[in-house]
Amino acid sequence: MPGLKNKLLSRMERDLENIEAALRQNLTPHIELVSKAAGHLIFSGGKRLRPLLNILSARLCGYEDPFVVKFSTIIEFLHTATLLHDDVVDDAAIRRGKPVAHSIFGAPVTVLVGDFLLARALTIATQTENPKIIRVISEITESMCQGEIQQLSRKGDVNLAESEYMEVIQRKTGFLIQGACQTGAILAGAAPVIEKQLSQYGYHIGLVFQIADDLLDYTAQTNILGKRVGADLREGKLTLPVIYALNRAEGRERDKMIKIIEDETFTPDEFQELIKMIDSHGGIAYSQSVAKTHVTAAKEIMGTFPPGETRNTLSMIADYALNRST
Amino acid sequence: MPGLKNKLLSRMERDLENIEAALRQNLTPHIELVSKAAGHLIFSGGKRLRPLLNILSARLCGYEDPFVVKFSTIIEFLHTATLLHDDVVDDAAIRRGKPVAHSIFGAPVTVLVGDFLLARALTIATQTENPKIIRVISEITESMCQGEIQQLSRKGDVNLAESEYMEVIQRKTGFLIQGACQTGAILAGAAPVIEKQLSQYGYHIGLVFQIADDLLDYTAQTNILGKRVGADLREGKLTLPVIYALNRAEGRERDKMIKIIEDETFTPDEFQELIKMIDSHGGIAYSQSVAKTHVTAAKEIMGTFPPGETRNTLSMIADYALNRST
Repeated sequence: MPGLKNKLLSRMERDLENIEAALRQNLTPHIELVSKAAGHLIFSGGKRLRPLLNILSARLCGYEDPFVVKFSTIIEFLHTATLLHDDVVDDAAIRRGKPVAHSIFGAPVTVLVGDFLLARALTIATQTENPKIIRVISEITESMCQGEIQQLSRKGDVNLAESEYMEVIQRKTGFLIQGACQTGAILAGAAPVIEKQLSQYGYHIGLVFQIADDLLDYTAQTNILGKRVGADLREGKLTLPVIYALNRAEGRERDKMIKIIEDETFTPDEFQELIKMIDSHGGIAYSQSVAKTHVTAAKEIMGTFPPGETRNTLSMIADYALNRST
Repeated sequence: MPGLKNKLLSRMERDLENIEAALRQNLTPHIELVSKAAGHLIFSGGKRLRPLLNILSARLCGYEDPFVVKFSTIIEFLHTATLLHDDVVDDAAIRRGKPVAHSIFGAPVTVLVGDFLLARALTIATQTENPKIIRVISEITESMCQGEIQQLSRKGDVNLAESEYMEVIQRKTGFLIQGACQTGAILAGAAPVIEKQLSQYGYHIGLVFQIADDLLDYTAQTNILGKRVGADLREGKLTLPVIYALNRAEGRERDKMIKIIEDETFTPDEFQELIKMIDSHGGIAYSQSVAKTHVTAAKEIMGTFPPGETRNTLSMIADYALNRST
């Protein structure tokens, strides 16, 4: 749906420009190397979905103070910190079509710059002087680390249950997106019931976003995706399409799937063979339908808000989260 | 001064027990692996200097609420997080006489567990609902990362200035110890002038502590130190004794020193030769005298407080920080 993407982009143009400026203004480390290493990933064409959700959620609650733009950088800095560390942890090669930070600046600097961004995010959060916001932000950070560790500890495990997959993606992706929406509401001083609705909306968007992301590894092309197709599996990350199919495949077919999955050096042909088997067991269709359920739930929540541009944009984001191609 | 150490230990016995219990109670991750990997370093015989300073500073200001013990775990968790990451970054082998965490759990888990501890520290800080405390804690975290990056970016640089060394150690060690004392005062609701005095006391203790630590690399024995003597230099970390001596050595002698410094595989004999040259230029004596100046300054600050056991303990810690053997 490139039309949807363009429509969203033109709606959000001003906000996106403000976010870019705020990211530059609020990075400000003492050490030049931190700017360079952090900037490499921060300014590499991220979609800014998380800070946008933060700003839109605050706006939906009637909050228009320009501080929200600065506040939204917290979410992007946290996100960037986890990407930096995840890429080191997974020894990834490409992110957003560029070599990963640690291939340029080395793992040590990259780890420390990630730490700096975590701390910077928290420092900005403290400027709200709102203990609840700060607590939500620090709890999100805890959850993300644990989600990543949980994923790592189940690396390559072909017996990973769907429920555990859902738990991992909620921790490592869901909570931050949920928190982006929830803290927008808190910042706006929204009533608890409204805060909860936005938090729930974010919960669904987070799941859609990660399931869609995991699907891209089986449906996209490398040149569009900005990273190598099949990268998840090569890193031992079993995601919903393959978990679902493994639960349904039997006998020699299942053995064949496992053989490809466990061989990190699988060829493009073997990967295509695997995709066919996943698809024949409905793994791709099932993942899409799970994601769709969450899209619907997110849009239903938006339906309870009064009509308006911000509400419509948040509904469109639910569709976009599922149907994006990168 | 083993007598001083034992005297301090017996004075602090109850506090130390409380700290141990609080560290166990407040780690509580969702993931078993996090407990194991974090516990490996947290419960490996650390001196608990930082949480003790935190508790004593609060007590000096009349604060005796048991919450201070829980609060003090923040400081130890932050400290542990940075040690975990530093050991990965430096690829160290031994810490406190044990193999480093990443040699057992792998660098990926260790990086993520460090992140978890950073976040856990901040989450506990938010329980104070005191924005100032939370801000101090998050700013300390930023500083520590930057100090470590600064050190890393000057790795092996034989032209490192003494002023830059001081800046690095203040960032990577000083701010946390300073913050331990300052947040103790804030927690106690101390007057700004008292908070500042305790912060200054912590500033001096932090510098003493790191300079003494750096000196041990040139004066201690491996079996006592709990890590290999000469490890700093092998990791390319130039510290005060060698910086001072390099500034004074000339010609062939300086060249010889640089040759040993730049060769990370130096032999024990070469290292002894280097120590002799450092000593002959007064590098060790000078470092000791800088540290002593800060001990005196710290004790002078304590002298402005009313006499009492807590004040005396804090004065003793100043002496201990310089004269410890591990």
